[in-house]
Amino acid sequence: MEKIIIIGLGLIGGSYAKGFTKNGIKVYAYNRNISAINYAKENNIIVDGTDNLSKDFVSKFDRIVFAIYPKIFIEFIDKYGAYIKDGAIITDVTGIKGSIVNTVQEKLGSRVEFIAAHPMAGKEVTGVENADEKIFENANYIITPTEKNTDRGIAFAEEVGKILKFRKISYLTVKEHDEMIAFLSQLTHCIAVSLMTCKNSKELVNYTGDSFRDLTRIANINENMWTELFMMNKEALLKEIDSFINCISHLRNYISDGDEEKIKNMMRLSTERRKYFDKK
Amino acid sequence: MEKIIIIGLGLIGGSYAKGFTKNGIKVYAYNRNISAINYAKENNIIVDGTDNLSKDFVSKFDRIVFAIYPKIFIEFIDKYGAYIKDGAIITDVTGIKGSIVNTVQEKLGSRVEFIAAHPMAGKEVTGVENADEKIFENANYIITPTEKNTDRGIAFAEEVGKILKFRKISYLTVKEHDEMIAFLSQLTHCIAVSLMTCKNSKELVNYTGDSFRDLTRIANINENMWTELFMMNKEALLKEIDSFINCISHLRNYISDGDEEKIKNMMRLSTERRKYFDKK
Repeated sequence: MEKIIIIGLGLIGGSYAKGFTKNGIKVYAYNRNISAINYAKENNIIVDGTDNLSKDFVSKFDRIVFAIYPKIFIEFIDKYGAYIKDGAIITDVTGIKGSIVNTVQEKLGSRVEFIAAHPMAGKEVTGVENADEKIFENANYIITPTEKNTDRGIAFAEEVGKILKFRKISYLTVKEHDEMIAFLSQLTHCIAVSLMTCKNSKELVNYTGDSFRDLTRIANINENMWTELFMMNKEALLKEIDSFINCISHLRNYISDGDEEKIKNMMRLSTERRKYFDKK
Repeated sequence: MEKIIIIGLGLIGGSYAKGFTKNGIKVYAYNRNISAINYAKENNIIVDGTDNLSKDFVSKFDRIVFAIYPKIFIEFIDKYGAYIKDGAIITDVTGIKGSIVNTVQEKLGSRVEFIAAHPMAGKEVTGVENADEKIFENANYIITPTEKNTDRGIAFAEEVGKILKFRKISYLTVKEHDEMIAFLSQLTHCIAVSLMTCKNSKELVNYTGDSFRDLTRIANINENMWTELFMMNKEALLKEIDSFINCISHLRNYISDGDEEKIKNMMRLSTERRKYFDKK
């Protein structure tokens, strides 16, 4: 891979750009706001970029990364899909796949291959100014191929994961991905937001330990992106929320009943399972 | 303060010992298991210690810190309270106060003053081997005086907080403390344990981002200590769990209804409130 274009130069697009550039790949970008492009050019994060897409520009690229919100991604394909070169391979970074992958693959037909991937990394800040390719180093990267993908397409997604030095590259089906993400990522954000809003907690900062801070780090949330992600994975997310509410209700009842042995059993299981998640 | 004795040389007792020793105070300790005493002596964390309390030993001290579980603390006062010198001041580190403070103050009468305090710090490991006085530096310290406490007693608790370099020393009533702790600390542990146990998540480590790790850090939990703390603050904790379940149920219903504006409002409030907790 000699050159690539990134569509959307925000935190994740910018971090991809930095990682690619460090590996000697010529990175170009499109962003609807030119200031991100200018910043990235001045800081040698990209070679060049534009806020005004032309067929001439887009058709120069065999490889494209879409680092934009899911709905805009689909709109983009509708509007500019025809600009993409025959035989090009494109990938994405979106946090849900079910509402995206089949739709985009169908729109593109056999002319352009879309291989979906999800970098499980982020920060509580936005924008290319905060981009940092190191966020990928301890992070997981999930590729979700369908029967429409070719070995060549899958190899491209894997190459992206390797260049960006993800800790682990895995494969899931679209459905498995969305169920997993409903639990690991969307439910956790629902919990953090609920905890942060269920009490007016302004004065509590003087009494808090680290546990409340840990559980609410992600309560600083991009409401547009996450609402979109929740809506696009509604069914799987509701299932996980209900399962969690059921679980904490059990614990609540053990406490209410004073059933210390059941509380301790739950805590022992919790400690045992948490060990899997210790960083190696 | 020239010398002090710490009863219970675990993670918190050991960290107090290290902090006091660094400030030139002669630290002595009692621990039921002699190995912790030996370790602390060998590593110059304490001057001397014992696993066998005598009146002769205890009565040498004007200042005592109890760094043991709440129930054992009360048992200790029953058994050894008479050993404590007339006019001595004692403090503690226990995470709940309602079930402790009045009981201990009544047992001690006017001969010995008990001023309760709560260092809001900890680690997911136990034992004096893991003790580290730096855990207090960014942490809060809450003193919970009652009408039985004197200025002299309160000044001692404050001195402890200052010597250990807590970020902030605050005062709460016993009731305020226990309500606050039910929300900030006990509820968060209930959430973490429930999240960690509601799915068999062994294989999920390959797909996780940091949010799940953050929310479950404290799911690695000391089941004996926390079950005791939950039981001793049952009423306040149940109130907070119910309030949280109510809150996440609202979010669940907004998602189910597709009410994006209500979801976004909740997220905006969440982001706004989380800012109070940014570390300065």
